[in-house]
Amino acid sequence: MVGLGPGDPRLLTAAATQALAQAEDLIGYHPYVARVPERPGLMRHASDNRVEVDRARHALELAASGRRVAIVSGGDPGVFAMAAALFEAIETGDTTWRELAISVEPGITAMLAAAARLGAPLGGDFCALSLSDNLKPWDVILARLEAVLRADLVIALYNPISSARPWQLGRALGLAAEIRRPETPVILARAVTRPDESIRVLTLEEAREAPADMATLVIIGASTTRLIARGEGTQPFVYTPRSVGSGKAA
Amino acid sequence: MVGLGPGDPRLLTAAATQALAQAEDLIGYHPYVARVPERPGLMRHASDNRVEVDRARHALELAASGRRVAIVSGGDPGVFAMAAALFEAIETGDTTWRELAISVEPGITAMLAAAARLGAPLGGDFCALSLSDNLKPWDVILARLEAVLRADLVIALYNPISSARPWQLGRALGLAAEIRRPETPVILARAVTRPDESIRVLTLEEAREAPADMATLVIIGASTTRLIARGEGTQPFVYTPRSVGSGKAA
Repeated sequence: MVGLGPGDPRLLTAAATQALAQAEDLIGYHPYVARVPERPGLMRHASDNRVEVDRARHALELAASGRRVAIVSGGDPGVFAMAAALFEAIETGDTTWRELAISVEPGITAMLAAAARLGAPLGGDFCALSLSDNLKPWDVILARLEAVLRADLVIALYNPISSARPWQLGRALGLAAEIRRPETPVILARAVTRPDESIRVLTLEEAREAPADMATLVIIGASTTRLIARGEGTQPFVYTPRSVGSGKAA
Repeated sequence: MVGLGPGDPRLLTAAATQALAQAEDLIGYHPYVARVPERPGLMRHASDNRVEVDRARHALELAASGRRVAIVSGGDPGVFAMAAALFEAIETGDTTWRELAISVEPGITAMLAAAARLGAPLGGDFCALSLSDNLKPWDVILARLEAVLRADLVIALYNPISSARPWQLGRALGLAAEIRRPETPVILARAVTRPDESIRVLTLEEAREAPADMATLVIIGASTTRLIARGEGTQPFVYTPRSVGSGKAA
């Protein structure tokens, strides 16, 4: 299971690159498979996004037959990506699959890449929530969001919106606006490190009216998150200081 | 600002490796500086752990004088590491520092590396909290911890314990035991990917009695976090399924 990072090939780890070089079969959602260059001896199995557990089973069957298989995932495989589906398939599948030599190569997940582009917005306590209600009831999502908003964590929202889920992000930012100040910094980071990257630093009030799509990661600042203005036409730095209130020492 | 990852040099990104190769000055806490091989033309400035903002100012002064400086940080610089201190120094320092060519190279933070070793324990919603009360009052830490425990997030605890802060982890696990079941999986991941790595998968009840130190990252599972047993003497897989209760589709 190999994490490809957010898109820029320079953000793969050496271990991930090596795992890809050794693979005989490459399995994954087609835009991720497309990131790995073709080469002789590498069989590519690209699939649609909606069949994660089937894709994992296919990989396990190939591995059980003696093939060296790489399942590729954007970002980090363990963060709202393919690793959980792989282990679901292992738990519910052939018990011999548990004896396979399985390793997970971590990757740079979108929130780390987006944060690095702007400064250190995740510099304090933070959380990562998926806004998708495909696998989780919406009332659970709202309850979690309210809890972390009140606890003043920085919040990274994965899967904020899609054509099939058009209203969830608006509701989430609406809830945020009931709890956090309108001027709270919000980052909309689209296609981070890819050629079509677009990163906007807005206020919470502005973000509620801003367009976003399924390639967007949203970061909602905490009460302590700050901007550092720079020259005209240059994005400000965004960071969350390490200190909260009065810790015992600086 | 360069993230070195958890320790294994194979977990650096290519971009981080390139930034280190181009640096003229290397600044950081001495165990991180020690990870970067010596070479002609690279000046090493290793320092103690307790002077983060001073270290950042030193780096900014060198960069302002025209030097190409790499500040090195374990894991990801933006997650309980040096990046927040750098931007604090920029905000409060010489305004010309804002015009420097500053970039942050992200890295594999400890929770991603620890999760990858075991499966996908961060497969659902999760948070990262620092247990250090050096820069944050203990009552804020407890309130945040209670909120995320009740919201059923997987919880990664950074800086869980040190010789100067011996009791905080015990209190945190005590609070967890009031809210989560005694058999909740807890991971104590020490020195992940380094030669002295030690990873234990315990129950919450067992974890309350287990030793930990400042090189340990703690992951407390959610109510849905599961173990997959494997052969005798082999660590189980640990994962958190993507589904919670009844989402609208699988």
